Amino acid sequence: MNVVVWNEYRHEKENPVVSEVYPNGIHSTIAEFLKEENFQVKTATLDEPQHGLTDELLDETDVLVWWGHKAHHEVSEDVAEKVKQRVLDGMGLIVLHSGHFSKVFKKLMGTGCDLKWREADEKERLWVVDPTHPITEGINQYIELEKEEMYGEHFDIPAPDELIFVSWFEGGEVFRSGATFKRGRGKIFYFRPGHETYPTYHNKEIQTVIKNGVKWAKNTNTPTPSYGNHQPLEKLD
Amino acid sequence: MNVVVWNEYRHEKENPVVSEVYPNGIHSTIAEFLKEENFQVKTATLDEPQHGLTDELLDETDVLVWWGHKAHHEVSEDVAEKVKQRVLDGMGLIVLHSGHFSKVFKKLMGTGCDLKWREADEKERLWVVDPTHPITEGINQYIELEKEEMYGEHFDIPAPDELIFVSWFEGGEVFRSGATFKRGRGKIFYFRPGHETYPTYHNKEIQTVIKNGVKWAKNTNTPTPSYGNHQPLEKLD
Amino acid sequence: MNVVVWNEYRHEKENPVVSEVYPNGIHSTIAEFLKEENFQVKTATLDEPQHGLTDELLDETDVLVWWGHKAHHEVSEDVAEKVKQRVLDGMGLIVLHSGHFSKVFKKLMGTGCDLKWREADEKERLWVVDPTHPITEGINQYIELEKEEMYGEHFDIPAPDELIFVSWFEGGEVFRSGATFKRGRGKIFYFRPGHETYPTYHNKEIQTVIKNGVKWAKNTNTPTPSYGNHQPLEKLD
Amino acid sequence: MNVVVWNEYRHEKENPVVSEVYPNGIHSTIAEFLKEENFQVKTATLDEPQHGLTDELLDETDVLVWWGHKAHHEVSEDVAEKVKQRVLDGMGLIVLHSGHFSKVFKKLMGTGCDLKWREADEKERLWVVDPTHPITEGINQYIELEKEEMYGEHFDIPAPDELIFVSWFEGGEVFRSGATFKRGRGKIFYFRPGHETYPTYHNKEIQTVIKNGVKWAKNTNTPTPSYGNHQPLEKLD
Repeated sequence: MNVVVWNEYRHEKENPVVSEVYPNGIHSTIAEFLKEENFQVKTATLDEPQHGLTDELLDETDVLVWWGHKAHHEVSEDVAEKVKQRVLDGMGLIVLHSGHFSKVFKKLMGTGCDLKWREADEKERLWVVDPTHPITEGINQYIELEKEEMYGEHFDIPAPDELIFVSWFEGGEVFRSGATFKRGRGKIFYFRPGHETYPTYHNKEIQTVIKNGVKWAKNTNTPTPSYGNHQPLEKLD
Repeated sequence: MNVVVWNEYRHEKENPVVSEVYPNGIHSTIAEFLKEENFQVKTATLDEPQHGLTDELLDETDVLVWWGHKAHHEVSEDVAEKVKQRVLDGMGLIVLHSGHFSKVFKKLMGTGCDLKWREADEKERLWVVDPTHPITEGINQYIELEKEEMYGEHFDIPAPDELIFVSWFEGGEVFRSGATFKRGRGKIFYFRPGHETYPTYHNKEIQTVIKNGVKWAKNTNTPTPSYGNHQPLEKLD
Repeated sequence: MNVVVWNEYRHEKENPVVSEVYPNGIHSTIAEFLKEENFQVKTATLDEPQHGLTDELLDETDVLVWWGHKAHHEVSEDVAEKVKQRVLDGMGLIVLHSGHFSKVFKKLMGTGCDLKWREADEKERLWVVDPTHPITEGINQYIELEKEEMYGEHFDIPAPDELIFVSWFEGGEVFRSGATFKRGRGKIFYFRPGHETYPTYHNKEIQTVIKNGVKWAKNTNTPTPSYGNHQPLEKLD
Repeated sequence: MNVVVWNEYRHEKENPVVSEVYPNGIHSTIAEFLKEENFQVKTATLDEPQHGLTDELLDETDVLVWWGHKAHHEVSEDVAEKVKQRVLDGMGLIVLHSGHFSKVFKKLMGTGCDLKWREADEKERLWVVDPTHPITEGINQYIELEKEEMYGEHFDIPAPDELIFVSWFEGGEVFRSGATFKRGRGKIFYFRPGHETYPTYHNKEIQTVIKNGVKWAKNTNTPTPSYGNHQPLEKLD
């Protein structure tokens, strides 16, 4: 299992509140706990050439984890398109928190992907609404985070293929905070938590969900469809 | 449009708090506002012969609205089965609040239909998560109810065909509170609000949703499939 | 109900086989039968300025019908993006046949939208798999077309919100040929039949489905969500 | 992984055509190839006491495979209800072919589960419509069976959570032949092929799909929801 964790990696360099929580960047924290599963984990960040996402790297990546926030527009059209194509060709994708507004996610969803938000140190509870889903393995009926940024409905996404978590926020909102989507041969998991000023990715339950998400998103040698002109009753392999 | 509103009609006769809110029964209140749409509305209650649901009545009913709570077990197996069959044959069904535990709804869902609950005078907000759906016509982004009974996830239903509302409750829970299901040729809308001690069915927005639900649930002369042994390339009508 | 029928309108001018079937263009044929429903119907074509899709026209359009085939790449990026936005804002969209490869549909789906195809005068049967859906009103269990182009799976779309028709083709293929998608506040219906060399849009049952699709796709004054920074327990209208 | 293969086991004892294809019963053939995956496999049949499905056996079963046809009515109400409850509690269920009409499947679906059928030695092609799904691992774009019984739409089931295969039949029909459903904490896979007079379960690709289905259906230690009266902001485990 080859995993790449992509991070915008700007807040951590510019905001001491964030660098205290994630001294080596959000990507390093996520990479560390994913390594506990014996995945091969690499990282890539916005300011590297090609944002660190070379063809060679993408071609061998099973699952890509994406965190971005304030510099979505700096991701080049080329790289965004290339990542989208790799997902359609079977690479798994985990989109975290503000990644909902990334070029890659918006291209794959086809919608605005907008939402309500508020930074007010609110309690969040992520309730499991699908207790059959392997992404919920090893957790309880809900995950509680003492302080998080609020995201509220309407979340402008297509109806998910599977809805796994719904969040409750202290201030009066709800949010579809764990949702899966299939696109082409690729599997996508959107997972809401993880504002940069909170230690959310140090939380063991959140880590469990992301680990489960990576396992779930890996393509398992499913068929590669052929397209185009096609003969009648032709035998295909 | 022929609508029948079915009510258990026990709380209203036994509990003065409830009879003050619904002096003629929940069914009468619902029937009154449905008549504003020029539907032909009749009512039926548990203690009538056959629970008021004769074959003649059911055969001409386009949409049935169901409210029950503490006497689900008193609904006869025969009537429950008959109502289920009528839904599969194309009658629309609106299941309100504690109707989640009715025999009819459980038979149609195939699951336990259980949930968490609490009577604590909590604020509820029903957020619209599907702003394309005709059931949301004429309402705002959410409906707020000052006091309601809490229903919390996990709600043990199949994944709905469409998820329209998600509720937030003051005490920390969320609930899939507006959901549609198709079964056979019938359309089903489950709508959460309406604990008997609160004036929920006097609320104009709640009334709008139920009116919309009835319109949506009516079958529109769609095809009646044939089943069984079938000849090759046979022409069917 | 304001409907616009958009057509590439090239085959009809270049291929006598097609112009014999649709002397005034596919758009005129479709517009004619839609007028039977008392819709206000206009048409627009590729070679008009802005492809006939001015802001004024789009702003007052309830439902847009789209037929394109060999000149998808000539549709300007601007117009395609504008149409996509209008759909997200609530305009209904009916995508016909080879419109599966249009810029607008691909942007809204987020996938490749590819498929298998064959021109071999094959019988097609469109079987109804959702006999509750208003788009099937007034038709039988299936629609049979004596000769059509084959489209075969895998059809590279997201799992539809609703699957209504599945086609059978003489040569050995199946296809999800009637499917709905919700995106933003907009409703989309993809309907497969309609290769330009066959009289498919003269078929009464096909006409019924397209009429039903237009009625279904019209937005019914559902809520317009607000997005962005949002105050706690703020009252919204 | 503990798997139980349940078989009605009547055709094999009464019809020499069937006993030639499956000399030790369909259950033995299925059990044999499942053992290749190192699953612990047991079998159970209708004419054993409690149809071979004791509480002890069911309690330790991860996935149950079900084949039945002409004696569905002989399965006791008690056993059918017990199996349904075990599925809701997390046991996986693979329903094969004519099992669509079993008491267990009908109870879990809530619909009539009827379909069209024909015994005419027709070619069947099962096309993959979801090339992300682990149940399709290791197979091609379609599976071809030279001769099978036809099953045709409308198949009276709820819209599946995932549609994986759609079948084409020589005589003019299509069928949703591979579909998943989640009910309670349980996962269900319905897979169409396997009429008793054909050697379908000796086909390697069909075997692969059933093996994949068993792996997919196993519950992976997901949360067990609690239900009933619930305190505000109560901490749950």
